[in-house]
Amino acid sequence: MTDPSSDNTPFATVLNRSLGTMIPTSASMNIEAIEVRPGFASMRAPFAGNGNHFGVMYAGVLFTVAELLGGALAWASFDQDRFYPLVKDMQINFRAPARSDVISQSTLSAAEIERISAEALERGKSTYLLEATVTDVDGTVVATTTGTYQLRAHRPAG
Amino acid sequence: MTDPSSDNTPFATVLNRSLGTMIPTSASMNIEAIEVRPGFASMRAPFAGNGNHFGVMYAGVLFTVAELLGGALAWASFDQDRFYPLVKDMQINFRAPARSDVISQSTLSAAEIERISAEALERGKSTYLLEATVTDVDGTVVATTTGTYQLRAHRPAG
Repeated sequence: MTDPSSDNTPFATVLNRSLGTMIPTSASMNIEAIEVRPGFASMRAPFAGNGNHFGVMYAGVLFTVAELLGGALAWASFDQDRFYPLVKDMQINFRAPARSDVISQSTLSAAEIERISAEALERGKSTYLLEATVTDVDGTVVATTTGTYQLRAHRPAG
Repeated sequence: MTDPSSDNTPFATVLNRSLGTMIPTSASMNIEAIEVRPGFASMRAPFAGNGNHFGVMYAGVLFTVAELLGGALAWASFDQDRFYPLVKDMQINFRAPARSDVISQSTLSAAEIERISAEALERGKSTYLLEATVTDVDGTVVATTTGTYQLRAHRPAG
C-alpha cells in the first residue's frame, strides 16, 4: 500500500483505494474509512446488505467495522516499512440493536504510539490495547470493543 | 425458516437453504453449515475470498463462522415458534494464523437446553454462555470464542 506520508492525500482516501483488495470482507460489507490519521481512525458500515433476519445489523459486521480500525490506526501511526500489526483477541459488547449505518472510531495516544514503536524496535514486538465504539446515526452506542493488538517488526529479508 | 423437525431432512441442509438470505454476510463469506442438531452445530468457512493482505484468514471471518453457531444451535435446540436468540457479547482469542478452510463447532448440553427453555418460558428470557472452537484443516485451533447469548420469548402479536 502507498505510504500515507508520501503526499498530501488524506489517509482515508489512500486507504479506501486498497482496503477492499487487501481485505475482501471489507468490500463485501461496503465498509469505508471516514477519517484516518496518526492516533485516530473512523470507519463506516452501511446498513444496506449488512442486516439479519431480525432487521438489525449483523453482529459480524459490527465486529468487523470495529476490528478494521486496528489495522488503519497501525498503518497511520507506525512506520509500515518496519512494522505490521496483529490482532490477538477482542471482546465485543453488543449494547443496542443497530438499525442504520454505523460509524466506528478508536484512538491511540501519542505517548502510546511512542511507547509501542520504541518497544517494537527494541524487542521485535509490542502489545497494546485498543478500545473502539460503534454508534448508529443517532449517536447511540450499539457496540463497544476492546482488542489486544501486537505491533511486530518485519523480519530482515533473506 | 422451515421448522427443522417437520421432516427428515438434515438440519444443516435446511439451514443452508436460507442462511444466505437471512444473513447476507454469511453468503459473502461462503459460510455453510456442516452439521446442526439439538445441542451441536458445526460450520465451515472457505479460505478462498476470506483472506487478508498477510495471507491468512481475516479476523472478521473467524469471528463470524464462530458467532453464527449461536443462531444455528438456538434454531435446532429451542422451539422457534416461541423463542429467538440474541448475542450480547463475545470474546474471541486468535490462537494461530489460519491458512486453510476452517471449521467451527460448539455444543450445548441437554441440561442447559432444558434450563434455558424453562427459564425463558417463565421469565421471558434466559442468558447462557456458548464456547466455540475454530480449527484449520490440520486440526490446529486457530480461534476460540466465548459468547453470552440470550434466549427471548416472542412477544404476543398485537
